[in-house]
Amino acid sequence: MLTSALRSVWRFLIGPPLRARDVSKEQITPAEGLSALSLDALTSVAYGPEAILAVLAAAGVAALHLVLPITVAIVILLAILVLSYRQVIDAYPGGGGAYAVCRANLGARVSMLAAAALIVDYTLTVAVSIAAGVGALTSAFPGLRDATVPISLGILAVITLLNLRGLGDTARAFLLPTMVFIVGLLAVIAIGLLHPLATVRPGHAPPPVEAVGVLLVLKAFSAGCSALTGVEAIANGVPLFKEPRQVRAKRTEALLGVILGAMLLGLAVLADRWHLAPRPGETVLSQVMAASVGRDWAYYLMSLTITLVLALAANTAFGGLPVLTGLLARDNYLPHLFSLRDDRQVFASGIWVLAVLSGALLVAVGGQTLALIPLFAIGVFTGFTLSQSGLVVHWWRARPAGWRHRAIVNGVGAVTTAAATLVFLITKFTAGAWVVVLAIPVFIALFGRIRHYYDRVGRILGLDEIPGRPRPVRTLVVIPVTGVSRLAEHAIGQALSIGSEVVAVTVVSGDPGETAGQARELHERWERWNPGVPLRVLRTEFASVARPVVAFIDELRRSRDEQIIVLIPVLVPARLRYGLLHNHLDLVLSNALRHHPEVIVARVPMPLHLDDRGDDRGMG
Amino acid sequence: MLTSALRSVWRFLIGPPLRARDVSKEQITPAEGLSALSLDALTSVAYGPEAILAVLAAAGVAALHLVLPITVAIVILLAILVLSYRQVIDAYPGGGGAYAVCRANLGARVSMLAAAALIVDYTLTVAVSIAAGVGALTSAFPGLRDATVPISLGILAVITLLNLRGLGDTARAFLLPTMVFIVGLLAVIAIGLLHPLATVRPGHAPPPVEAVGVLLVLKAFSAGCSALTGVEAIANGVPLFKEPRQVRAKRTEALLGVILGAMLLGLAVLADRWHLAPRPGETVLSQVMAASVGRDWAYYLMSLTITLVLALAANTAFGGLPVLTGLLARDNYLPHLFSLRDDRQVFASGIWVLAVLSGALLVAVGGQTLALIPLFAIGVFTGFTLSQSGLVVHWWRARPAGWRHRAIVNGVGAVTTAAATLVFLITKFTAGAWVVVLAIPVFIALFGRIRHYYDRVGRILGLDEIPGRPRPVRTLVVIPVTGVSRLAEHAIGQALSIGSEVVAVTVVSGDPGETAGQARELHERWERWNPGVPLRVLRTEFASVARPVVAFIDELRRSRDEQIIVLIPVLVPARLRYGLLHNHLDLVLSNALRHHPEVIVARVPMPLHLDDRGDDRGMG
Repeated sequence: MLTSALRSVWRFLIGPPLRARDVSKEQITPAEGLSALSLDALTSVAYGPEAILAVLAAAGVAALHLVLPITVAIVILLAILVLSYRQVIDAYPGGGGAYAVCRANLGARVSMLAAAALIVDYTLTVAVSIAAGVGALTSAFPGLRDATVPISLGILAVITLLNLRGLGDTARAFLLPTMVFIVGLLAVIAIGLLHPLATVRPGHAPPPVEAVGVLLVLKAFSAGCSALTGVEAIANGVPLFKEPRQVRAKRTEALLGVILGAMLLGLAVLADRWHLAPRPGETVLSQVMAASVGRDWAYYLMSLTITLVLALAANTAFGGLPVLTGLLARDNYLPHLFSLRDDRQVFASGIWVLAVLSGALLVAVGGQTLALIPLFAIGVFTGFTLSQSGLVVHWWRARPAGWRHRAIVNGVGAVTTAAATLVFLITKFTAGAWVVVLAIPVFIALFGRIRHYYDRVGRILGLDEIPGRPRPVRTLVVIPVTGVSRLAEHAIGQALSIGSEVVAVTVVSGDPGETAGQARELHERWERWNPGVPLRVLRTEFASVARPVVAFIDELRRSRDEQIIVLIPVLVPARLRYGLLHNHLDLVLSNALRHHPEVIVARVPMPLHLDDRGDDRGMG
Repeated sequence: MLTSALRSVWRFLIGPPLRARDVSKEQITPAEGLSALSLDALTSVAYGPEAILAVLAAAGVAALHLVLPITVAIVILLAILVLSYRQVIDAYPGGGGAYAVCRANLGARVSMLAAAALIVDYTLTVAVSIAAGVGALTSAFPGLRDATVPISLGILAVITLLNLRGLGDTARAFLLPTMVFIVGLLAVIAIGLLHPLATVRPGHAPPPVEAVGVLLVLKAFSAGCSALTGVEAIANGVPLFKEPRQVRAKRTEALLGVILGAMLLGLAVLADRWHLAPRPGETVLSQVMAASVGRDWAYYLMSLTITLVLALAANTAFGGLPVLTGLLARDNYLPHLFSLRDDRQVFASGIWVLAVLSGALLVAVGGQTLALIPLFAIGVFTGFTLSQSGLVVHWWRARPAGWRHRAIVNGVGAVTTAAATLVFLITKFTAGAWVVVLAIPVFIALFGRIRHYYDRVGRILGLDEIPGRPRPVRTLVVIPVTGVSRLAEHAIGQALSIGSEVVAVTVVSGDPGETAGQARELHERWERWNPGVPLRVLRTEFASVARPVVAFIDELRRSRDEQIIVLIPVLVPARLRYGLLHNHLDLVLSNALRHHPEVIVARVPMPLHLDDRGDDRGMG
């Protein structure tokens, strides 16, 4: 009864089952595309610049000036990526995720690498976005700082629940906050750049602990590349756009590039001008906003909007990973469970796995965004490199008009992102990147083992062939009974209609002296009844009745050839609460026979119909 | 795997299964009888006098003198009870518990009252003994006072575990602490009475809140009667004694009366002389011992001994209640579960129920002994009254030599204990006795309902008659399959040998458009295979595959007469961890069919034997 109450509460939270055709297949415009597919990329401005400055601050105030040239380099990389992904949209109008592109062009092995990198990427997108969102919140409301981890997990729980309800991808609901975020942040930057009064408190500058050098610049660059995560999402989601799909999707990709580039450059200029550095408890973005518009209603509105859009960015990963794991499961690389839709037509297993993994990450780093950045970019940039390389192969094979030009664009994209990946690997290995370097091969090995297992099971089951004609086998039915009763009569009737041969078995337990007498008595009563099947009385000195029955069946299995069927007679009381009054020997027995897969175990239920009036005339 | 690890730990704590003949049937001497059967009565001195003084203290220091006359009255009642129970031993050498005596002489209805009173009594014995034992401990070591409830529950857990192991009644182990307790406490009292130097700090006397009157005296008397609980235990345990049993048991009963009476009188004289009253955090017994022998090694030895023997007294209730509930279950008054012995040959259900009930009481009163006293005596004295009355009827019916004299003794016992019960009811109703007054009729009503249910089930099952000859029925076997495979071949082979008629069924889910194509394809493949049974493809727009199968079976049940058997084919992977890779549709389906008792559900396992070398050649 407890479990059924819990199930009701869960059903209330999740909603009733949905038909396949009830699931909306929304068709979106470029503006909606920005909110549905680009939030992950746009919201990267909340942690990308911060990550650069955190690296530079280690080399003292003077090094902070490097933020501008580094950001310029990142924006150039952004431009290359945008151009590359506009071509992906042309090549894969059906949605060109790194996994699909690799599978088509680079083979199954490499697509495993892409899939592993994507799983890491989605998980980190959720964790980083939520951490950065809570960072924006606690910057505005420092009193909440101690509750960082609980708030993070609370947001994660809400997102998980919405996605289990199947409400994860209601793009239209995302439109307003996305627009407030884009317009508001661009306005904040413009005001900061133009307004003569905008000033900032002197930055909290710790003494330099590192020299300015090539390694530092590379480290800052690689940290800043976290701002580019998510630019691939539009290319994955082309089928969602209204016709003409490719045109709209490419327009959205370009729009994303312009907006994101402008934001990054603007923030870099302001950070450079105001010597901003990360402060404990306050993000760089919060400092920029406070300096630009003052700690007033506009600041608080923007802070809350940033928290909201970062939560929505985390939500987009929930749209991606379950679909990916569903594909992997259909290709036999993950347990088939991941390819099953639940009552709400969502891939619930994928949603749960993503929630658990990202929740564990958030707890592990105490909700600190900067601690997650080193893990983040590697997975993302590995995916970039793979899908760009796949595209080069694609152009090479298909050779449409202008294929050389296209191959060069994607080739440049592949080389630059590969170089960036290498930089991350070298500069951030000890800072946490090793976790990803370890996780990816583990995932790949797991995919391989699972695929191998399914292949062999498929061969054994003859899934690709027509199996032989089924042949009936001889059966021997064993019925455990407690004595002579109508229940035994009912069960033996069933057994006679099922099996070639039937034997009843019963257990008496106690002292050898007692049991001998009981056995004799049972035999006599059975013979008086004469139901047409033999009774075997098992005597035991132990209290357990399951053990002798199992031993008897083991003995039969050794000495006989027939398929053994155990039919356990069971009274089904009219009301649930009467269940307490029955012995549940059926549960005990079927549990004991669980490890005998060669034996078929069935309960023979006999419903107990008490007439209700008599029932209420109880003695009490 | 977790459950099997837990099971191992539990098995380690409880020990391996025991044979019926391995369970020792100890034969005890009077001294051992005192420790095995009288601890409950003897240890009552730890709370009886305290309960009297707590009532008197409410009327001021002057009223404390009443402790002596009240104790004299209680000791007179004790003498009557001892004489009465010596006669019970004569009449019921097989063990004369109140339930058995009532059942034999006063009928089933009254025996229900006795059984209910005994259940209350056993539960309170455990709770009061443990609370008083912890009270002795915290009097000696005041630092432990804050941990009263945890310590109480810890002691309860240890006792429960020992009893589940079947070590509850190792009388010989109880002998030494019992003797230390008896000799030590008598010595403490003697020293206190004789030693001129024994003095006590002036008692902590709160201002009087009640006048000295008849009601106060009656209240104090009824509270003190809690010191008499347990004097019936020897009569219940006659079969445990060495031959000549009755002589030894009667000798033990007399010994108990003399020792308990001497202790109660001695403590009353000392309490009177020293104006003792209960002090928060220190029991009266602790004050007596401290005053008599000083807070020295003897005091601490006695305090620890008292804690130990009180825990052992609680343990004796664990020997009683499970046997009683076992008897009640055999007589169909409680679920049959209570009459089943577990692997250690103990009545585990009764042990668990007693542990839970007494643990709940301990938590409810915060481990305070005095809060439990008002609940205690009613159950006990109801039992006294009933078994004495039963004995009167017994003598009247049997009329052995001197039956008049014997009937008078038991009659006096019955009348005085009935009078005492009435006093408790009146004086303690609002102080907690109403709980018992409520609980006893509830128990009786429950017994009646359960008995009524079993009687009707017995009639339906024809337990007293020879049932008809079992007749085979026609069967229809339904096999849910996922498609054409060797698993389906295996299951259909089984089904053909079981049923008169077989139908395979499968579910395709998704858009109406998709499913139509899938269904056609499946039908074609099935026809190519031609396994000899028809395939029914169920199309659904919902994700659940269980619902359409259940609906199909419901339809069959409405339109057909045959017994429906659902055979669910299931792959049994070679290793447990591979289970994750399979869909467990069998569990989903059998769970969905749980509420269809008229349908027989069985899994048809097909063991999956992967050759091990191939298994390790995995792709990773």
